[in-house]
Amino acid sequence: MTAPAGFRAAGVACGIKRHNPAQSSAPLDLALIVADAPASAAAVFTTNKAVAAPVVVSREHLARSGGIARAVVVNSGCANACTGEAGLAVARGMAARAAEAAGCSADHVLVSSTGVIGVPLSLDKVTQGIADAKRALSRTGNDTTMRAIMTTDPFPKSKAVSVQTAAGSFAVGGIAKGSGMIEPRMATMLGFLTTDARVAPDVLQRALRRVADETFNAITVDGECSTNDCVFLLASGASGVEIARDDDPALIAGLRAVSAHLAREIVRGGEGATKLVTVQVTGAASSNDAWLAARTIANSPLVKTAIHGGDPNWGRLVAAAGRSGAAFELDRASVAVGPVAVFVRGVPHDERADEAAAVMQAKDVAVSVDLGTGGTHAATMWTCDFSAEYVRINAEYRT
Amino acid sequence: MTAPAGFRAAGVACGIKRHNPAQSSAPLDLALIVADAPASAAAVFTTNKAVAAPVVVSREHLARSGGIARAVVVNSGCANACTGEAGLAVARGMAARAAEAAGCSADHVLVSSTGVIGVPLSLDKVTQGIADAKRALSRTGNDTTMRAIMTTDPFPKSKAVSVQTAAGSFAVGGIAKGSGMIEPRMATMLGFLTTDARVAPDVLQRALRRVADETFNAITVDGECSTNDCVFLLASGASGVEIARDDDPALIAGLRAVSAHLAREIVRGGEGATKLVTVQVTGAASSNDAWLAARTIANSPLVKTAIHGGDPNWGRLVAAAGRSGAAFELDRASVAVGPVAVFVRGVPHDERADEAAAVMQAKDVAVSVDLGTGGTHAATMWTCDFSAEYVRINAEYRT
Repeated sequence: MTAPAGFRAAGVACGIKRHNPAQSSAPLDLALIVADAPASAAAVFTTNKAVAAPVVVSREHLARSGGIARAVVVNSGCANACTGEAGLAVARGMAARAAEAAGCSADHVLVSSTGVIGVPLSLDKVTQGIADAKRALSRTGNDTTMRAIMTTDPFPKSKAVSVQTAAGSFAVGGIAKGSGMIEPRMATMLGFLTTDARVAPDVLQRALRRVADETFNAITVDGECSTNDCVFLLASGASGVEIARDDDPALIAGLRAVSAHLAREIVRGGEGATKLVTVQVTGAASSNDAWLAARTIANSPLVKTAIHGGDPNWGRLVAAAGRSGAAFELDRASVAVGPVAVFVRGVPHDERADEAAAVMQAKDVAVSVDLGTGGTHAATMWTCDFSAEYVRINAEYRT
Repeated sequence: MTAPAGFRAAGVACGIKRHNPAQSSAPLDLALIVADAPASAAAVFTTNKAVAAPVVVSREHLARSGGIARAVVVNSGCANACTGEAGLAVARGMAARAAEAAGCSADHVLVSSTGVIGVPLSLDKVTQGIADAKRALSRTGNDTTMRAIMTTDPFPKSKAVSVQTAAGSFAVGGIAKGSGMIEPRMATMLGFLTTDARVAPDVLQRALRRVADETFNAITVDGECSTNDCVFLLASGASGVEIARDDDPALIAGLRAVSAHLAREIVRGGEGATKLVTVQVTGAASSNDAWLAARTIANSPLVKTAIHGGDPNWGRLVAAAGRSGAAFELDRASVAVGPVAVFVRGVPHDERADEAAAVMQAKDVAVSVDLGTGGTHAATMWTCDFSAEYVRINAEYRT
């Protein structure tokens, strides 16, 4: 995320997360990203009606600034959600402190939080964290920054690409965190993208929306849409490469490469996940039906546990598609596990179960369902398997 | 289910389920219920578009007979779903054999199956089972019958009540099976109800629909709606008590007492379940919103794992309500765990977390969410907690 020119960042520890005495150093829990100059900014947010205070504040700031931002401040360990007026004051205070650090107005700061819901966030800790982060800001701060936004993530997520155009090259970079409460209908948990292309705010916003829908919005870990989901994208313009249209192939390719990688990494690092599962739906009567069926399959606990167990129990895929609400013709529907067709136009091919089971031993598994309507619409989602570890993590996360 | 006069039943073993050599006797897997004379019959079926062969056949028979049935034949261990034309022929054959046993036409037989999807059902085994069951039919056959319909159920489910009216008393009885793939939008997994009241088929159908919506349709184990869900209700009339209206208080009370008990027992015996959870939603802007929020909360893996861990993590209830699509006002919303208010009109009361945690130690836990819209609509659903055992059962069910 510091690969594109014009951005510095740092992650620090400020005591929001508990310090496990068995660990030598305190866990990183505050990140600051600062653009060298005012940058074009775009964002997509959660569609959950219970929105966290930082989401409210970031939306306000983007509206007031007309899509310009100078800094992003993020804490992990506390979501600052369901915290009432007090929580809103903390989110505003957090933006004000970051504005001082970046030398800009508070409206030019985007705020984000992740962690437990309903617990107050300490502005004192955040203030200390921002002061420390300001001193640590650097062009190589990607490493600490991507770690400071993690909660139950088993590994950090980061990606950068360089995009060549006739006018020169520009970079796109990003970091993300995921793990639980992941089924972002509009944005994913937290993603912070940067580019040094020069892009006007409205163009940037449309490009981000376009790419988010088929990357961050096409993943699920547990069907839960968080109170805090957001993806921010800042464009510094420092490369000098000007992008005028939201469907510019170079911009879309760069954003897609970074976003698709981060989105799949979020799933791969989903709570308790052992496999990355690609769910492809074809033969749908409408695009909406294709997404409906893909989403239902990707969230089905019976599908996800079968994949966890390496069991080619394709009947569960059929049952999930059938209950999804999408048009579905059982007699003409088909299912494949990887390249192995186990159900073809309504007829079971259980003699291929062993072959399908072998395919399912891999870490990456693709399943595909043709809804049998003769329609040409399709959708692809990414999900993970469902393990006992997911239950352990979420039964013990807070207490 | 044999408590009402006019019904005999039996459950037998016919080799559909594998016989574990460690067990002395083969598992029961075929049930036959026979009315002494043609009975009024009502049914509610799965809304899954991938309907199993027995559902197709039972629907046809009810339509042709005008709501009259003499026998119900059920097998467990094989769902006869996604089995194509061959499966349909087996379901029809199963009805024909049961008709011979009961001495009626095939149209007067209802057929039901439960078990693995996509595996052929052996008509030979079913035929042998029906012959054996015919010989075993008795007025005290409830015990073997309720066991013969089980799959992964940890215990059998049965209930009977006697209802007093001015015209005399009648009985209502029922058996059910559940466990996995349970979120019956129109009916539950399998439920077989009987009464000796005299009720016309159309009245019986409307009464069953009315009661099913607030009992069998108000439960969830894992949000999955099966290919085979059905509830059948037969009325023999043998008590001589005539019921003329579908909203007759005695009939509704009797059906509700049996159905609510069986529905809650299905949840209590849900795969991996350790707790029965009552989810109450109030303050909804519409009835649809109330059900939407209740259903989303009742299916939320994060809510269900928190309850499993005894963690009063009420933020997950708020997040689930917020993403449900129902109108939701965070600033006026409230959450309680049992009688303990942990979030009141937008303000957290985390000082009551220990109290709430203590309440959650019980086997039966109630959680309530007021959506804060000022509306007066409400809904109650029953769900279970989500344990690692659910994953174990479903990752290993078939292989």
